[in-house]
Amino acid sequence: MPRPSTPLLSRAQIATAALALIDEAGTFTLPGLAKALSVSPSSIYHHFPGGRESIVEAIRGLLAAEGIETEPGGRDWRRFVEDWSRAYREEFARHPRAVPLLTGQVVTDPETLAGYEAVARVLRDAGFRDETLLHAVTILDSFIIGSALDASAPLGVWADSPDPGSALGSAIRAARNEPARSSERSFEIGLRIILDGLGAIASAVRQDPIEGRPASAGRPPPTGPPGPAGAG
Amino acid sequence: MPRPSTPLLSRAQIATAALALIDEAGTFTLPGLAKALSVSPSSIYHHFPGGRESIVEAIRGLLAAEGIETEPGGRDWRRFVEDWSRAYREEFARHPRAVPLLTGQVVTDPETLAGYEAVARVLRDAGFRDETLLHAVTILDSFIIGSALDASAPLGVWADSPDPGSALGSAIRAARNEPARSSERSFEIGLRIILDGLGAIASAVRQDPIEGRPASAGRPPPTGPPGPAGAG
Repeated sequence: MPRPSTPLLSRAQIATAALALIDEAGTFTLPGLAKALSVSPSSIYHHFPGGRESIVEAIRGLLAAEGIETEPGGRDWRRFVEDWSRAYREEFARHPRAVPLLTGQVVTDPETLAGYEAVARVLRDAGFRDETLLHAVTILDSFIIGSALDASAPLGVWADSPDPGSALGSAIRAARNEPARSSERSFEIGLRIILDGLGAIASAVRQDPIEGRPASAGRPPPTGPPGPAGAG
Repeated sequence: MPRPSTPLLSRAQIATAALALIDEAGTFTLPGLAKALSVSPSSIYHHFPGGRESIVEAIRGLLAAEGIETEPGGRDWRRFVEDWSRAYREEFARHPRAVPLLTGQVVTDPETLAGYEAVARVLRDAGFRDETLLHAVTILDSFIIGSALDASAPLGVWADSPDPGSALGSAIRAARNEPARSSERSFEIGLRIILDGLGAIASAVRQDPIEGRPASAGRPPPTGPPGPAGAG
């Protein structure tokens, strides 16, 4: 039997090639992608009738498949959210230029949604309800995405100051003596602060007998965390 | 006197045009920028001998000049950091595709550095020292950048689930009934959590008589926040 005259092309191959173009140039076009794969644009449309946006979703799927967790297993909410956050940051940090494309459109990739659903479920079990739950997911998401961009940034994020009295300059020089990469440690401290804060909200919700009822039964859940009233 | 035969070109004009190209296409090239401005590439090099990277720094300067604060004035550390964080998020949210270019190179723009220096100074006055201070700035920076990308994302970040038992789907539907834009509220809650956490670290440092001494006098400051030891 003769082999097909056009190269065999898979969705994963197309998404991988698009990601390589984004890594290199910050973006991709369908003609450029077709050229990189030595195929016609119509072969790409054949696999992605939804066009460019559906290719970006397939890239999201590639990253999710590379290690973003979707099953809590026996872990408590905090441990699962920690593991999910670390994996998510790591994947995004490898492809910083893909980040605005990925955050710029609605998440429809099923594997990625399964990860968020797992996070939402453990947060619900921890005490979060509805809008508060969505805020918790968004806060984690924002911190992870920003930390991924920080992790992919040059080692010295800020130019050192020649002024010996500079508070930033002094902090930068001190950080150079740290053994671990500074951004890694910042991420872990920040994640701990956020999980402490979310834990405090969850336990406040659990201790309120009305909020403790199923979401469908009562008044809307609180949207603000407890804590010092310093914020304006 | 005859007018000059080449159009008058300023650094700000060039940076503004480059930002417009990034907003549109996610990136810019020097030939593309020259074409957009109807000048030769050498006119651009005349204003930016440092090339592309120095144009990205000028874009950072444009954004900083549009409202990022550099002077605490009479505000306490927390209020100043809040105001700085909000302004910074707002500027970046207007130009999401510029974010990976801006985070991808060392910050040398003087106005932006002055903003970070002001933040570093108020944090030092609040009790932070050196590495811990740099972690605090990095945590804020990461959260702000991620929140800016979230703010520029489509209104529904995640596709709704048809499964009525989905925790994420239920949270998404509840958020639709919120009066304020959800990402704004998430940012404020997250910022409050982070500032509470940083405040707890700062006050722990202040209460320790050794840590309370000037940075040059003692052992290295702690790099972890107090709080539940749930983090791995």
